[in-house]
Amino acid sequence: MDKIMRERADRIVAASIRAVQPDDAVARALKGVTFPGRVVLVAAGKAAWQMAKAARDCLGDRIDSGVVVTKYGHVMGPIGNFDCREAGHPVPDENSFAATQAALELVENLTEKDTVLFLLSGGGSALFEKPLVPPEVLQDITGQLLACGADIVEINTIRKRLSAVKGGRFAEVCAPAKVFSIVLSDILGDPLDMIASGPAVPDSTTCAQAEAIAVKYDLRLTEQAKDCLRAETPKHLDNVTTQITGSVRELCAAAAAECEMMGYEPVLLTDQLCCQAKEAGSFLGTILRTHYGRGRKLAFLAGGETVVQLTGHGKGGRNQELALAAAPALEGLTGVCVFSVGSDGTDGPTDAAGGYVDGETNRALNARRLSVFDVLKDNDAYHALEQVGGLIITGPTGTNVNDVAVALVDG
Amino acid sequence: MDKIMRERADRIVAASIRAVQPDDAVARALKGVTFPGRVVLVAAGKAAWQMAKAARDCLGDRIDSGVVVTKYGHVMGPIGNFDCREAGHPVPDENSFAATQAALELVENLTEKDTVLFLLSGGGSALFEKPLVPPEVLQDITGQLLACGADIVEINTIRKRLSAVKGGRFAEVCAPAKVFSIVLSDILGDPLDMIASGPAVPDSTTCAQAEAIAVKYDLRLTEQAKDCLRAETPKHLDNVTTQITGSVRELCAAAAAECEMMGYEPVLLTDQLCCQAKEAGSFLGTILRTHYGRGRKLAFLAGGETVVQLTGHGKGGRNQELALAAAPALEGLTGVCVFSVGSDGTDGPTDAAGGYVDGETNRALNARRLSVFDVLKDNDAYHALEQVGGLIITGPTGTNVNDVAVALVDG
Repeated sequence: MDKIMRERADRIVAASIRAVQPDDAVARALKGVTFPGRVVLVAAGKAAWQMAKAARDCLGDRIDSGVVVTKYGHVMGPIGNFDCREAGHPVPDENSFAATQAALELVENLTEKDTVLFLLSGGGSALFEKPLVPPEVLQDITGQLLACGADIVEINTIRKRLSAVKGGRFAEVCAPAKVFSIVLSDILGDPLDMIASGPAVPDSTTCAQAEAIAVKYDLRLTEQAKDCLRAETPKHLDNVTTQITGSVRELCAAAAAECEMMGYEPVLLTDQLCCQAKEAGSFLGTILRTHYGRGRKLAFLAGGETVVQLTGHGKGGRNQELALAAAPALEGLTGVCVFSVGSDGTDGPTDAAGGYVDGETNRALNARRLSVFDVLKDNDAYHALEQVGGLIITGPTGTNVNDVAVALVDG
Repeated sequence: MDKIMRERADRIVAASIRAVQPDDAVARALKGVTFPGRVVLVAAGKAAWQMAKAARDCLGDRIDSGVVVTKYGHVMGPIGNFDCREAGHPVPDENSFAATQAALELVENLTEKDTVLFLLSGGGSALFEKPLVPPEVLQDITGQLLACGADIVEINTIRKRLSAVKGGRFAEVCAPAKVFSIVLSDILGDPLDMIASGPAVPDSTTCAQAEAIAVKYDLRLTEQAKDCLRAETPKHLDNVTTQITGSVRELCAAAAAECEMMGYEPVLLTDQLCCQAKEAGSFLGTILRTHYGRGRKLAFLAGGETVVQLTGHGKGGRNQELALAAAPALEGLTGVCVFSVGSDGTDGPTDAAGGYVDGETNRALNARRLSVFDVLKDNDAYHALEQVGGLIITGPTGTNVNDVAVALVDG
């Protein structure tokens, strides 16, 4: 193994994951922002506690009061005078509804000078909910939609209308106050209306579409539910500012910044990678081979979430497969490496976050009578990389914004 | 289909293929070159006639005389006073040996001021040969090596020593004259000693290696063959200048130059692409999606030769699959396209050279009840692209230097 390249890889991995921690991400989003009137805080989602804590650390007593709702076991202690609650996920329960009600009461009677600091992360859809029909009716309608093969867009079109907070309605309740929304994205491409069903995002679906879906699938609906489908969701929200943070885009940006600090010229290829892991690795390997010996220190970056084709019974993960697949193209080159990590610190069913290879890896594997081709066919990247010091192990990181792969060439 | 993007794609394809035509490639390699003494020409390979014709067009009577040896049916007419011959390929025959003998006689008695203009293209290994053992002995040894599983490097190490022209020996015969060698490369990465077994390239293999291979596989050898294995090949050739031309690198460079003419900033990713066609297409699609709307006109280029995974019984080729696989990622975007072509004008067992997709392709396919996923599973890219105007048809181009894929985004 090339120790210098490995050290650089570890530094880039550490810096990238640090940048997408909920606290760093919230601090970055709040940098330079000022609020004219009162500030109240509402935080919902799996990272709600960390996000609220970070906001409190940034703004201190500037925040009047707050409601925080997260998963059971996720409140790590008190935060100032905030009302920290735990509730059901992925299925909402009475505590979800009660916490949401507390949040709705908190944002009542604000003036247009005031601001609701709204911190949203994955899981918010269940944790932040106030159904407009009894929970058993909601469950029945969802069940009917799933049974007749409705797609996720159709299901959301109906469900948004059965909620008092989804589809932009929470922001409507906050008016005339401003909503400053910080969203920790865990979905590729950051579709804002999908993250927690977009409580502070204008809804693009219409009543007409909802009714068409009801007809298409011949849904059995209560009168109350029918009324809900006829009520339009907000199409414009003038009081909302949204900052997406902690996304795979920021993961890539942080990796690129660290590469630049080390003298590499960063080239972001994509932050929406979704092809087969090992093919992406091969592609990155040939990119390095082409740019090798041309005198430019380059760092190629690709963020996203690749897929693994299962053809064997070994142990591994998509990041380990991606890195391993690059090894043959790098054989014999110096000052090159390819590595890939999952930002959550877990790659497949392993204790590794990802994998690392350089110009020496392929020979080291061959010396152990291992061929990359066979290892990948057996989906056994973990055991192969383990033998040549190619595992990247970070432990759980407390965040999850997909993966980043980096290919370095010294020139 | 976006007609403007399609037009640009066609222009880039035409310019790239034109640049790697044997005649353009030879003309480029000869540009600005001057020769002090006599010039004689030796051309061997499938493109020998075109290359010799181009050299004659450039240098006219400056070339004293020449020997041209190409495949049966490939001599298109006389070229000045050159001795144009046809011979056996892929198996050498008496005409190969006779033509090679004529070339060896042509380069006798030259002085150190004189130059042998040596034009080499794919197929030269069979067409340009003078065995040092009877043909049936050569065939027997090759058969033994294949039967016992020797790899291509081992086979070449033995075979070079059984030839009077391979492994740098032709250049040795030319000495003291200079050899100006123009090589039209058809192998990825341009391994000069592999192209026609390198008649004018120093040989990196040794007698010791050759004897070790003979022992390893317990080869049955005649005394004459044993003597051959003991004779060293040239390790340095001071009289040779080599210009590689018409390679996939030049194909990419020409595509990049044409993109730049149209205002795109070219980004060469690799000229050694070798992963799965459809995965490369997906990767390129996500690259465009990431750079869409960022205000820079970019052209990403990837040259090489991808592979197709056969899972169905449709009609297609690797370039068509690559392009088609990019379509979903481009859906709904404007001013983007991905296309890929084989420089020989033939992609798989089809009459198309490759495929083209843009932001409208996926919807057009869906409207015809076709999904890219299913089409690729059936390896039926040809019929799908045919329906939406996505085939690129050039006809046979007279050259073969692998493929180039281009992804354009207007900003």
